[in-house]
Amino acid sequence: MDHGGDLISYESYYEGELIDFSSNINPLGPPEGLGEILINSFTTLESYPDIKYRELKKSISNYLKCNKENILVGNGAVEIINNFTILANRVLVITPSFSEYEKRAIVHGKPVVRMTYKDDFSIDIKALENIVEKDDLLILGNPNNPTGLRVDEKTLIEIYKIIKNKEAYLLLDEAFYEFSPKDYDSIELFKFSNYENIGIIRAATKFFALPGIRLGYGCCSVDKVKELEKVELPWSINSLADAAGQFIFKDKDYIEKSKDYIEEERNYLLEELSKIEGFKPYKTHTNYILIKLSAWNEEYIFNFLLKKGIVIRKCSSFTDLSNGYIRVAIKDRNNNMRLINGLKELNRKEKD
Amino acid sequence: MDHGGDLISYESYYEGELIDFSSNINPLGPPEGLGEILINSFTTLESYPDIKYRELKKSISNYLKCNKENILVGNGAVEIINNFTILANRVLVITPSFSEYEKRAIVHGKPVVRMTYKDDFSIDIKALENIVEKDDLLILGNPNNPTGLRVDEKTLIEIYKIIKNKEAYLLLDEAFYEFSPKDYDSIELFKFSNYENIGIIRAATKFFALPGIRLGYGCCSVDKVKELEKVELPWSINSLADAAGQFIFKDKDYIEKSKDYIEEERNYLLEELSKIEGFKPYKTHTNYILIKLSAWNEEYIFNFLLKKGIVIRKCSSFTDLSNGYIRVAIKDRNNNMRLINGLKELNRKEKD
Repeated sequence: MDHGGDLISYESYYEGELIDFSSNINPLGPPEGLGEILINSFTTLESYPDIKYRELKKSISNYLKCNKENILVGNGAVEIINNFTILANRVLVITPSFSEYEKRAIVHGKPVVRMTYKDDFSIDIKALENIVEKDDLLILGNPNNPTGLRVDEKTLIEIYKIIKNKEAYLLLDEAFYEFSPKDYDSIELFKFSNYENIGIIRAATKFFALPGIRLGYGCCSVDKVKELEKVELPWSINSLADAAGQFIFKDKDYIEKSKDYIEEERNYLLEELSKIEGFKPYKTHTNYILIKLSAWNEEYIFNFLLKKGIVIRKCSSFTDLSNGYIRVAIKDRNNNMRLINGLKELNRKEKD
Repeated sequence: MDHGGDLISYESYYEGELIDFSSNINPLGPPEGLGEILINSFTTLESYPDIKYRELKKSISNYLKCNKENILVGNGAVEIINNFTILANRVLVITPSFSEYEKRAIVHGKPVVRMTYKDDFSIDIKALENIVEKDDLLILGNPNNPTGLRVDEKTLIEIYKIIKNKEAYLLLDEAFYEFSPKDYDSIELFKFSNYENIGIIRAATKFFALPGIRLGYGCCSVDKVKELEKVELPWSINSLADAAGQFIFKDKDYIEKSKDYIEEERNYLLEELSKIEGFKPYKTHTNYILIKLSAWNEEYIFNFLLKKGIVIRKCSSFTDLSNGYIRVAIKDRNNNMRLINGLKELNRKEKD
């Protein structure tokens, strides 16, 4: 199991609807009114999408507050990561992290250089400096998946300086950006540099609850945009995703409400989890929680919860995580309680 | 201009709606009832598409009459072509043909070997045999774009034998398959081989009039399917395209009606074009016509027709075609008449 969200593979193990704690989607669902926008866009299916995605890029540039000439779009964040990889020399990853970083490098025959996060999942800056070489592509989850942590502003600037000095490239995968604290916005932070040697990727997938629509976007230098255009597939974003991307970012109320909601549920879930024996939740800056297991392994927990209709993410498929870890999404209160009750029951059952 | 269908770039040159003769889409539009299917699928946007596209592959396998284990899907035919290219050693193209064959090879650093079609746009089999080497990927448009011709059954078998003997790979791009004569179905034809050394790609784009939905599919050996899985991007088909692909192929009436309609309009357009001085239409097996110009160049015709709201495809961007060629789609009778009248007017104007 390389990815979460594959509920179909487990449907036969439970009568009733499975609850997906394995993929990390905003529990409030997409912004209201999207359905109507999509219906009004059905006729656009009969033409090719704008090959330059002019209106979509305008909408994203308003949302991200950067020039439309700096905007990238892709069929999910993963396609943009893939395209950066094609242009890279070597790919640097800090593990554990999203498996596609390495996978895309391997697909394109690029050497992968790994370093590991420290025990607290922070980055060993000295070690990083020793590893980075000219033309390397460092892909950094920010917040990182599955660890849940975001690099603080000062450290991020430090990392950028190392990358810049070595003439390498820093690609921030910020697919979970909106869930994280409002202390800094990397797109604003790196405006001064005109995004030289840095690219920032985000997506409609998680925060806007649209994993099915496949819309990733990002921001980088104008030169890099042009370089990427040479490797991009034409029309990679479907017309309805194009239309959705011209709508969802305008809904400021939805955005604020979602942020507040996740913060509240995050606090609830962290507190409740910390009370349960055998589970050590890590601090998180986003809408999922990595949990260290001390009494059972991932397989046991997975199967126990599956019988209750709950699907979690086993973590042994992440480099540098063993079968002693699971990851759970932060969902709505009702489902979060179901998860907590499930885990409590496990404890009770064991004590009987 | 590398691709047709980019009407937005010409909007400012004409007051009113432009008619797109530059992209080759079924003028009848998509099958009826698709809108309802899509509306019923809106909730699927909140989950990841099935990463294995199980139901979609089942639907396609019914349509193509081959096993679902042989089915490939992609974000448009072009993504599937791209993935084959990643696995290739060298890429062979016969020109003029769809520019993305060469472009994808270049993106992935694969040497491109070109040979040219003969003057009648047939293939020089002897020359092909001399060129093909082990592990080459020959990408063949069938029907070929922009020439419009399909390889006859006997020749196709001959080509396949050459490819098989040399341990190379034949990739048929059959994006326009349904528009062509019913004499043979390559998927049926190569069933005997279990699709060893051959892959066949088709798409919802042209015949099902859904260029905006981005749905390509194909058929190849089970081993090749597995090899391609290793390079494919996850979730590359959007949930609504997935839903559409479970619906459109069932509409047998639509499919028959579309074939008949195109055949009738093809005959009409070819006959009318052949009467107009300065334009020599080539024979075609599909829903577009390549035209050789004898009195004007592509730029002149393009601009003349643009003033009348008609956008055609200039052909000098195709390798081995000069500015003495244009390509036009076959549209509905009303629009086809507008094109014919436009070209007649050009002749009258010149004589005044």
